[in-house]
Amino acid sequence: MGGNDAQLLADSLVAADVRGIHSHGVLRVPDYVEKLLAGGVDPNGRPTLVSDRAAAIVVDGGNSMGQIGAWFAMGLAIERAKATNVAVAAVRGSNHCGAMFHYAMRALPEDMIGIAMTNALPTMAPWGGKDKIVGINPLAVAIPSQDEPPVVLDAAFSYSSHGKIRVYRQKGEPIPATWAYDSDGLPTTDAAKAIEGLLQPIGEYKGVGLAIVSGVLSTLLSGASYGSESGNMAEGAKAGHDGHVFIAINVAGFEDVARFKSRVDGIVQEIRGSARAVGTSRLYAPGGLEAETEASYRREGIPLNEMTWEGLECASRRVSP
Amino acid sequence: MGGNDAQLLADSLVAADVRGIHSHGVLRVPDYVEKLLAGGVDPNGRPTLVSDRAAAIVVDGGNSMGQIGAWFAMGLAIERAKATNVAVAAVRGSNHCGAMFHYAMRALPEDMIGIAMTNALPTMAPWGGKDKIVGINPLAVAIPSQDEPPVVLDAAFSYSSHGKIRVYRQKGEPIPATWAYDSDGLPTTDAAKAIEGLLQPIGEYKGVGLAIVSGVLSTLLSGASYGSESGNMAEGAKAGHDGHVFIAINVAGFEDVARFKSRVDGIVQEIRGSARAVGTSRLYAPGGLEAETEASYRREGIPLNEMTWEGLECASRRVSP
Repeated sequence: MGGNDAQLLADSLVAADVRGIHSHGVLRVPDYVEKLLAGGVDPNGRPTLVSDRAAAIVVDGGNSMGQIGAWFAMGLAIERAKATNVAVAAVRGSNHCGAMFHYAMRALPEDMIGIAMTNALPTMAPWGGKDKIVGINPLAVAIPSQDEPPVVLDAAFSYSSHGKIRVYRQKGEPIPATWAYDSDGLPTTDAAKAIEGLLQPIGEYKGVGLAIVSGVLSTLLSGASYGSESGNMAEGAKAGHDGHVFIAINVAGFEDVARFKSRVDGIVQEIRGSARAVGTSRLYAPGGLEAETEASYRREGIPLNEMTWEGLECASRRVSP
Repeated sequence: MGGNDAQLLADSLVAADVRGIHSHGVLRVPDYVEKLLAGGVDPNGRPTLVSDRAAAIVVDGGNSMGQIGAWFAMGLAIERAKATNVAVAAVRGSNHCGAMFHYAMRALPEDMIGIAMTNALPTMAPWGGKDKIVGINPLAVAIPSQDEPPVVLDAAFSYSSHGKIRVYRQKGEPIPATWAYDSDGLPTTDAAKAIEGLLQPIGEYKGVGLAIVSGVLSTLLSGASYGSESGNMAEGAKAGHDGHVFIAINVAGFEDVARFKSRVDGIVQEIRGSARAVGTSRLYAPGGLEAETEASYRREGIPLNEMTWEGLECASRRVSP
């Protein structure tokens, strides 16, 4: 990869680690190296503008690493929203682009709200079904604040994740009953059956519906592959098929920016100061815990576990001349 | 109310009933009559344009019934999106505006995606808390299709609703453990404690986060009241404080419309034709069941229960000269 692209990709991984989202941090490096060496992703792929019509932008990732096209598209949406106040950039021809909050948060220094969604390989069934045809298609939203941490939500529409379930399987412990279904589409607490089976959505039909909508917005606007068209968990993602969508909303187009941001501060403070249920030590608005983690990691360094470190060394040996 | 406004309000209620969403249908008439006679909502309130900047529109509902300002704003967003391809209309000075899918679906005949969100009176706590300061702030999304029913999602970010819990209380039955917390913020299966307590979000912190984001977008862009600023469940909503937000995305700005709609058909068909888990008789994409209900009710009429009918008669007597 060119130096700039490599830097951008590395930044996106470290941005996840520094907020404590290690599942999307440098832990991914071995997998990404594999994608670049053997998975068909083009290290020199370049995102291009497919169409550009007022507040509507379409980008083709050119089979670059997902981060490259995603960053490019979010940048275009933000620039356009300076003129139009709202802009949407839809991406096709892409690949896994990491944690979505990274793109949404890029809007914050511009006093914009950032929204990012992506297609994901299908791991859920339609509500009442058992075929793995719906992705957990995460959504991230970042809302600018004044003195408090920004409101940053990044959530997939599954209750849990394969990563968390694998930890339970390693420990030989049962998973909570709300996390997964077995291959027959019935709730299971057996971690091994869950891995073979399906992730449960949040809120039953609501979560599946939200995932379908996020998937459609992430792929059908740009002409990217949706759901199982983009690959499957057994064989992995098809290189250059993925899709995402990015939205920038310019606060100044609607409301006095200082007033908006001070009201966001008020919401964060209201949550922090509200009464705690038994067993809770602190209350956070979305992104508040991650902001605290970031402040602490920036002072003290980011702790990486043994397995992540070994993965980095192994990947490094693989690509060293 | 003027004839046109009364018609628009009635249409919105019947639009909910005809899709089987009776909780937001003419069941609401007595409550709405109360709002108009004694609740401070202005029957002759007129929505006005506050600001109009490219893809960003702000509307003041003028303390009209929520449906009047919401319909006005969604109409402006759709008209603007014909030029800019994406448009957002934020509303303040409003009141309860009924089922959100009604506004989202208005985008469909224009081959646009419609999105609608609203502030709601707070009935949830922040994650880990017990103060009632977060609304269930529903989101609706409508996506145009070709021959299949459109994909229409309308979901609040609570697992269940006060209406459903009241039915359990009437029957003296316990509610599922995922529906509510008691006043201490602990899960309860006691319907009476649940009514006094809090609604549980979908997917724990995810649902609360989604609700907060939906609430911020619905209120802070327009300067409407957020959460407890807009009232509370004990004393009701403050007239003319509510906020909503409406988004129109013009498919033609991004993608060939026929291709987009035919791919939506494909997703609907893939879901319908996929394997069913034990106990499921049919699978639906979001809005598929409601479309079937609508087809059947349009043939056979809309069944209203005794209590709804009595409410209509009672409200009718109250306003008859």
